[in-house]
This record gives sequence, structure tokens and C-alpha cells, in this order.
Amino acid sequence: MKATVVVRLKSEVLDPQGDAVRRALGTLGFEGVKNVRIGKIVEIEIDEAHSKDPKDLTERLAKMSDEMLANPVIEDYEVKLG
Amino acid sequence: MKATVVVRLKSEVLDPQGDAVRRALGTLGFEGVKNVRIGKIVEIEIDEAHSKDPKDLTERLAKMSDEMLANPVIEDYEVKLG
Repeated sequence: MKATVVVRLKSEVLDPQGDAVRRALGTLGFEGVKNVRIGKIVEIEIDEAHSKDPKDLTERLAKMSDEMLANPVIEDYEVKLG
Repeated sequence: MKATVVVRLKSEVLDPQGDAVRRALGTLGFEGVKNVRIGKIVEIEIDEAHSKDPKDLTERLAKMSDEMLANPVIEDYEVKLG
């Protein structure tokens, strides 16, 4: 089973990397770019034995995110199965 | 209009960061994690004037990806509108 965890900076947190990309896109001549936010996508493959119960799997992925994949102080995360 | 570009390492490219996360998850006691791949998600806000024609916008986002958001040698990208 494949699962995806999308990790984003919280909306109130500044994103200097995103701002740098926005300015660079403007320099390259791409007009109309109002805002850029950069996040992380973690794609996890779980073996069959540990992915039978979707509810349990979602809870375990949330625990992985809380403990390791996301920094709870500045980041939010979203878990998607499949 | 919001658009998202998901940038991933090509499948044949090793992902040491993903491997490190996989091992760390195992150390934290999360069983059944067979593989982890880490990518980038770039969320772009484009003003109305430059996002009227979805086909044109998709082409411009692909051009942004080719020129800047993704490294064509080791990365693939996927453009999603909305």
C-alpha cells in the first residue's frame, strides 16, 4: 500500500524559499506569480501485513508525522492513502 | 488561481534522504515501512489576468518547472491546476 504525507509550512510562517522562487520566476519573465509556498511530499510504501485496516494505517501515519516527518511548531501535514 | 507542481526524484535515482527516514521510522518502532521517497510540492498562486486559459497556464507551469522548479536530469514533475 502506498501512502502520501504532504508537509506544509503553517500559513502564518514566512517562507523565504518560496519568496526566492517567486522573485526568480519574475526575473525569468514569468508574469502574474503572486505567491509561492514550498512544502515536502513523503511517499511511503507499507507492506500488506501493516496496511489492512485503513483507519489504523491513517493513525500510524499521523503518529509518524507527529514524531518525525513534520515539525509541529512550524508545519502542518496531510495524510492520504493510496 | 492556485496551481501545484509536485517534483519527485526519478524512480531510477537513489533517495538517501528517503532511506534515512525509512531507517529512522524503523528505529522509532514503526513496522512495515518498505520504502520512503521524498519530493517537493510547490504551491503557486497566479493572478486572474494570467490564469484565464487552463491550457496556456499548464504550459507556462511546465515551462517554469523545466526552467527552474525541477532539475530535469534527476527529477520529474507533475502540474495540477486548482
